[in-house]
Amino acid sequence: MGLLLVNTIGFAAETNQVNEGKEIMKDNKISLGAEIKLMAPVWVIGSYDKAGKANMMTAAWVGICCSKPPCVSIALRKATYTYGNIMERKAFTVNIPSKNYVKEADYFGLVSGRDVDKLSATGLTPVKGEKVDAPYLKEFPVAVECKLINTVEVGLHTMFIGEIMDVKADKSMVGENNSLLPCMLLFNSTTRDYYGIGEQLGKAFSAGREIINKKK
Amino acid sequence: MGLLLVNTIGFAAETNQVNEGKEIMKDNKISLGAEIKLMAPVWVIGSYDKAGKANMMTAAWVGICCSKPPCVSIALRKATYTYGNIMERKAFTVNIPSKNYVKEADYFGLVSGRDVDKLSATGLTPVKGEKVDAPYLKEFPVAVECKLINTVEVGLHTMFIGEIMDVKADKSMVGENNSLLPCMLLFNSTTRDYYGIGEQLGKAFSAGREIINKKK
Repeated sequence: MGLLLVNTIGFAAETNQVNEGKEIMKDNKISLGAEIKLMAPVWVIGSYDKAGKANMMTAAWVGICCSKPPCVSIALRKATYTYGNIMERKAFTVNIPSKNYVKEADYFGLVSGRDVDKLSATGLTPVKGEKVDAPYLKEFPVAVECKLINTVEVGLHTMFIGEIMDVKADKSMVGENNSLLPCMLLFNSTTRDYYGIGEQLGKAFSAGREIINKKK
Repeated sequence: MGLLLVNTIGFAAETNQVNEGKEIMKDNKISLGAEIKLMAPVWVIGSYDKAGKANMMTAAWVGICCSKPPCVSIALRKATYTYGNIMERKAFTVNIPSKNYVKEADYFGLVSGRDVDKLSATGLTPVKGEKVDAPYLKEFPVAVECKLINTVEVGLHTMFIGEIMDVKADKSMVGENNSLLPCMLLFNSTTRDYYGIGEQLGKAFSAGREIINKKK
């Protein structure tokens, strides 16, 4: 693949942005290097420590990873307090903040449960999990109880694979057929901003049928 | 944890929603069972088949999974065409659709590359990866080239862990310090809707400092 090293001044003049000495691909894309640039969900992970103190930490290197059984994966550094908690209790919860809890979600990622009682500091309420040995947050609209079923080492991080044992949601979040209304915070790691959910843009397993039909 | 089986008629009257016979927890949450209810990012995965035909498939059971080295994980069923492609080529790309490509992103998840040439059907352009043996999409604003470094079996799905070798983005997406402007589609699996990104809600590693300062 051919590259074109762009004249910095000419490029800056054209885009009004600072990308000095960056390579521009033939297809007009800029190569940004081997870095994480993608946006990610903001999940707050609940766990108990050895003494039974509830802790919450914020994680964004997370995702759903299986439909059957329903599983999620969360990647944590060994240095986190939550790492030891999950190793010990074999359980965690995933708590989804609404846009009313940006401050608390950020706080849970700023300090360690080793040093402070984050629940007490935020005034939020840990509820003992019904299915697993981990606490969920009363005030957040959605909570997922997970049983640890596997760990995978990936560089600096350990992925905890948790099987979903139950999803709990505020009544106001639950729609027809037990669907959930949109609820999520997003993390832009490159600008360090949180975002909410935007407009509905189309129906899944439906919008693309136009292309199938055109082909016929 | 105590449960309260709610009178269906009373509850339906109160919320105008159908949650017949569902249990309501003491903390006012509804238990929805062991199911995937969370929203997920929409990533389009690029790969080459044995014959060198470019293919794209849509995946939502995905996420970032390590900072160092930078890695992503995507979970696919063995039945997908992409599964065999990645096993063979040890590489894939992650392509992030803008809201202009909802139709195409949905289409890529509706049909199999075993049966059709999805690139030809959509008129989108595969570009040969620069760092790995997989194609990315010229028209989508962000592409990530990934080298397969591990696979993990989780129930029905196989997680492919890919090390990020490069991120490529349209010039118009790149801000100061090579940050990326917000770009993502979200998938609500319970209502089968796609959503865009909403408003900026706060600064990460900053919004929560208010709680730290209050404590002092």
